[in-house]
Amino acid sequence: MISIGIIGYGYWGPNLARCAAESDGCRLAAIADFSSAARERAGKRYPAAKLYSSWQDLIADPKVDAVVIATPVSTHYEIALSALLAGKHVLVEKPMTNTSAQALRLIEEASKRKLVLMVDHTFVFTPAVQKIRDLIVTGKVGDIYYYDSTRINLGLFQHDVNVVWDLAVHDLAILEYLFDERPTAMSASGAGHIRGKPENMAHISLFFPSGMVAYLNVNWLAPVKIRQTLIAGTKRMIVYNDLEPSEKVKVYDRGVDLNESPEDLRKLLVSYRTGDMWSPQLPLKEALLTELEHFSEAISAGTEPITSGISGLNVVSMLESAATSLSRRGTPIEIGLMRRAS
Amino acid sequence: MISIGIIGYGYWGPNLARCAAESDGCRLAAIADFSSAARERAGKRYPAAKLYSSWQDLIADPKVDAVVIATPVSTHYEIALSALLAGKHVLVEKPMTNTSAQALRLIEEASKRKLVLMVDHTFVFTPAVQKIRDLIVTGKVGDIYYYDSTRINLGLFQHDVNVVWDLAVHDLAILEYLFDERPTAMSASGAGHIRGKPENMAHISLFFPSGMVAYLNVNWLAPVKIRQTLIAGTKRMIVYNDLEPSEKVKVYDRGVDLNESPEDLRKLLVSYRTGDMWSPQLPLKEALLTELEHFSEAISAGTEPITSGISGLNVVSMLESAATSLSRRGTPIEIGLMRRAS
Amino acid sequence: MISIGIIGYGYWGPNLARCAAESDGCRLAAIADFSSAARERAGKRYPAAKLYSSWQDLIADPKVDAVVIATPVSTHYEIALSALLAGKHVLVEKPMTNTSAQALRLIEEASKRKLVLMVDHTFVFTPAVQKIRDLIVTGKVGDIYYYDSTRINLGLFQHDVNVVWDLAVHDLAILEYLFDERPTAMSASGAGHIRGKPENMAHISLFFPSGMVAYLNVNWLAPVKIRQTLIAGTKRMIVYNDLEPSEKVKVYDRGVDLNESPEDLRKLLVSYRTGDMWSPQLPLKEALLTELEHFSEAISAGTEPITSGISGLNVVSMLESAATSLSRRGTPIEIGLMRRAS
Amino acid sequence: MISIGIIGYGYWGPNLARCAAESDGCRLAAIADFSSAARERAGKRYPAAKLYSSWQDLIADPKVDAVVIATPVSTHYEIALSALLAGKHVLVEKPMTNTSAQALRLIEEASKRKLVLMVDHTFVFTPAVQKIRDLIVTGKVGDIYYYDSTRINLGLFQHDVNVVWDLAVHDLAILEYLFDERPTAMSASGAGHIRGKPENMAHISLFFPSGMVAYLNVNWLAPVKIRQTLIAGTKRMIVYNDLEPSEKVKVYDRGVDLNESPEDLRKLLVSYRTGDMWSPQLPLKEALLTELEHFSEAISAGTEPITSGISGLNVVSMLESAATSLSRRGTPIEIGLMRRAS
Repeated sequence: MISIGIIGYGYWGPNLARCAAESDGCRLAAIADFSSAARERAGKRYPAAKLYSSWQDLIADPKVDAVVIATPVSTHYEIALSALLAGKHVLVEKPMTNTSAQALRLIEEASKRKLVLMVDHTFVFTPAVQKIRDLIVTGKVGDIYYYDSTRINLGLFQHDVNVVWDLAVHDLAILEYLFDERPTAMSASGAGHIRGKPENMAHISLFFPSGMVAYLNVNWLAPVKIRQTLIAGTKRMIVYNDLEPSEKVKVYDRGVDLNESPEDLRKLLVSYRTGDMWSPQLPLKEALLTELEHFSEAISAGTEPITSGISGLNVVSMLESAATSLSRRGTPIEIGLMRRAS
Repeated sequence: MISIGIIGYGYWGPNLARCAAESDGCRLAAIADFSSAARERAGKRYPAAKLYSSWQDLIADPKVDAVVIATPVSTHYEIALSALLAGKHVLVEKPMTNTSAQALRLIEEASKRKLVLMVDHTFVFTPAVQKIRDLIVTGKVGDIYYYDSTRINLGLFQHDVNVVWDLAVHDLAILEYLFDERPTAMSASGAGHIRGKPENMAHISLFFPSGMVAYLNVNWLAPVKIRQTLIAGTKRMIVYNDLEPSEKVKVYDRGVDLNESPEDLRKLLVSYRTGDMWSPQLPLKEALLTELEHFSEAISAGTEPITSGISGLNVVSMLESAATSLSRRGTPIEIGLMRRAS
Repeated sequence: MISIGIIGYGYWGPNLARCAAESDGCRLAAIADFSSAARERAGKRYPAAKLYSSWQDLIADPKVDAVVIATPVSTHYEIALSALLAGKHVLVEKPMTNTSAQALRLIEEASKRKLVLMVDHTFVFTPAVQKIRDLIVTGKVGDIYYYDSTRINLGLFQHDVNVVWDLAVHDLAILEYLFDERPTAMSASGAGHIRGKPENMAHISLFFPSGMVAYLNVNWLAPVKIRQTLIAGTKRMIVYNDLEPSEKVKVYDRGVDLNESPEDLRKLLVSYRTGDMWSPQLPLKEALLTELEHFSEAISAGTEPITSGISGLNVVSMLESAATSLSRRGTPIEIGLMRRAS
Repeated sequence: MISIGIIGYGYWGPNLARCAAESDGCRLAAIADFSSAARERAGKRYPAAKLYSSWQDLIADPKVDAVVIATPVSTHYEIALSALLAGKHVLVEKPMTNTSAQALRLIEEASKRKLVLMVDHTFVFTPAVQKIRDLIVTGKVGDIYYYDSTRINLGLFQHDVNVVWDLAVHDLAILEYLFDERPTAMSASGAGHIRGKPENMAHISLFFPSGMVAYLNVNWLAPVKIRQTLIAGTKRMIVYNDLEPSEKVKVYDRGVDLNESPEDLRKLLVSYRTGDMWSPQLPLKEALLTELEHFSEAISAGTEPITSGISGLNVVSMLESAATSLSRRGTPIEIGLMRRAS
């Protein structure tokens, strides 16, 4: 049984605490927050958990095996590094760190100490995204043409982080998980419509070695909420609508068939294939609970988690490249990402 | 009563012929097509119209006041120029010409001869787009933040034209009509997934002097058909879904309110405003019929049509810039467009 | 090649004429309408068709093999009977006649003379309804629990016919086609909200020998248009939405599983089965064209059409029962219908 | 500050407890449940609340001012009566009692003792239903033609209660609240598809003195979940879709205009009016919280709550009439309901 300490009990921390408390492989041992009001809420809810006003004290607690970090991004690196140095396994909220250099340092430290370092890329643990991964891996979709995602809504302007760090990060984490290849270049253009605030809308293109492309449309200033992703391959096409209560994933037996003429490419015949649509039933299990169980298992079995430090690093690297391209009005940027050892 | 001659009776020509026949201000006098099968279909449908196997003969017909050109893009320039030189008014299908130089030449010739030169930007004459223009012009939307359009479906790969020339051209024509400013730069990235075929998907960003941005997502290889445009301004936001049978235009009383503090921009308070939604009833009149009537009126009254040659030129210029940016993987391109005299 | 004469060129007649002209097995030989404007429209469109100002003259034309009757319901019986007596095959618009006695008389006359008598139950020939029939016949749906249809919109108040005769007739015809059993009782309640006008909304329940029930909700005074039918069986459930551009038919692998305990029915365990959804690709062929071809084939081959006179009679009988129940505020009425010989 | 005791901590009780704890005008003083597991869950969540294993003991607690009853329907009467006799105010889950006689007895007892007796008709306190009531009361909808509701889903077969008592009860409570008139007759037909189980689908018609009609379609065995209500009046029409995340209420400026001719009703001209649609922004406040506050206010101010005992009685009376009509296959039943004193 892994003893978990939660650092940060603000917006997302209570969800992580609840799943740590409900999860089979672990128990919620401690919660740290500098706000006394947050500690009071935590204490009422989890009378058995130890409460700390400083994260340093929680990390020093010898009864805590692993920490879950749910604090602002700018603090992730210091807290995660301290935790690793104290011999604790770490699950850190996304994005993993402010810079890829920080992410790399954490990966090295975890690797040296044989500790689990995992990033909270929650969407990777949803039944919908796991089903899509399964369809891709088993060849049902064929070679991938593109991934095209729209993630927009009205709300949540943040002071220190732009819409790319807040919303596009989800797609970047999903791309990390779904596909075995990494983008080699990207282009991002965006706009900040509120003076003195960071970008509230952005359009990002990612170019992959195989010819696959990914497009992300993220926006905090949209009249309606949309969470829709199209994935097209040579065999099938997927529409993933995360707002659908059921039927989140629809698989279309549609595409283009080529009748290649050996002599003359201009005579290539393109015919459209339109077939059935199929929407697989998805399990109802909560993603965050699956994620906490995965964290516990990785610790117990000494295995690499799916959303490992390297995934976290790759996402941070893509965010950095996006920032560079954004500042140059969409000029394409070359990027170099790590591959998971598999 | 204006006598109209239709050149090209293939895919779109029959629609133009029908509207010319039904329209009050004009009559369908002649139809030209080099295909005898097309002429036979035309003759059965319009026994009173004169049939020509060559467009040159139609243009030479002294009873024809104005020609409507519905032939492949590559032939527009030659036919339109010949028609103007023969003293005919011209309505030409979109895109107006292959190059902006050709478009400019047509504009000059029409101007010199005081002939009407109009481009068939059909969407401009839809009740939905006209209502949106009205909302913008009367200040209901406020200053515009962005125009973001998704125009995707499965189908109609073409040999000689890519998806930008086929689908994005509609949004470029709508942008020409809706807004009084012209973009100064654009970026386009695209992909061609079928070997030997032109690009079948593209993402285009257009940057306007006021800070407004426009984004276009066009795709021939999508599992579902989407025709959705978001337009956001300081006062209201619009969702325009052209596939809705009714309620094509929804106006949201939503946005961001700023509580500006004079001393410190970082203390700027952003609050969300969420209010009612309103969907105006739209007239049911067919856009193409409205367009033909507008053409007749412009000829009769000697006025400049809304979708004038300059609009056509601007759209062609944007298509050219898009092609350049596409070939450079999204590198931003500066563009210079003409303004309608108003 | 069957020579067809169309009687009535008002609202629906032009569609029937077009399909008769396009259909392979027949040719459009004549059109009758007492309105000279209608005849003029018909003549322009079909210069080869003979035009008659009286239906009697058309029926007397020896070159006409079969007539298609698209006149008001109250005239169906007289025209159809005359046509049969003149030795013509007959396709008559729905509802077949004003009364079941009239319908029976037509069936007898057609049978005696070995002529084809067919009713224009158009929905039966749609790809969607034919696919649903296929799913039911092949046992995919299992034993049927119910058919529940909502068919509402704003519009088309008629002087002489109420909403049941105008809209519910479609569902009654579909029920005739989909299922091999006939209802033994029905209940209908309705309301007429406009003084001096027939009922504009009605709710109808039909009770079948197997325990299956059918419910119809029809309404001319609804703010939105809905065409949605649910069909549930022991194995699968269907949602048929006729307004969906694609995905009209969705098949759900959902239902209830029973774990029957032999001793005690009260201990019966009901568990829910929720599985995948599947939407079959449907052919795009126009229903009316399929119907005209079916009519021609029945004449050529001397076979009974699917929407035979008996189907038409059964639908008229159900309309009569509905009228009786409506007048008694929903009191259930016993009904006796004929079965197709099969 | 009213001290609340919750009786029953099963499915719905925890929601009532949470709202009692969060509500301003009251405090959660005690919880009773015979299950020790339920009491344990309650105790962890509300350490300050007193826990009882019998409802009799909770009622005997002098510190409890008011009880909220969330036990099976068959126990409502005994518990509520005991609570009233012990001088406690009562909020009881819907349906209020098994029989109208029981409901009447509770109303009399509460009236005699000047205690508040309220029924948990939750939908009445939703922002959507309150907005609709406001539109009706202020005359925006005009005279009401009909209320037509579809409330279907897959699930929750119950042993002792049929679908009418489980789902139609919501619409009956909404009808009680929205309109000032009461139905004088009703017809209900239903079907039980699972042997040994109560009816799982039903269609109910309610007839009102003004000519208004209400139709309810309720079903536990449907492949999809629908919660849609149409309300049409002489001036406007409403579509209320409770599953829409936003835009739950849409108001259509549509209907029928009559051009009455004094001489001849048959010449009555009906013309359709199609105008704008408008969707009012609704507050986000949780209905149950509003309801608990209303309960506290009624106790403090000594006023009649909106969902008074009389509303509860009327709903139970309609359920009884529905049961009678169901058993007679839809035969209309006369009903007599009480009116709220207003």
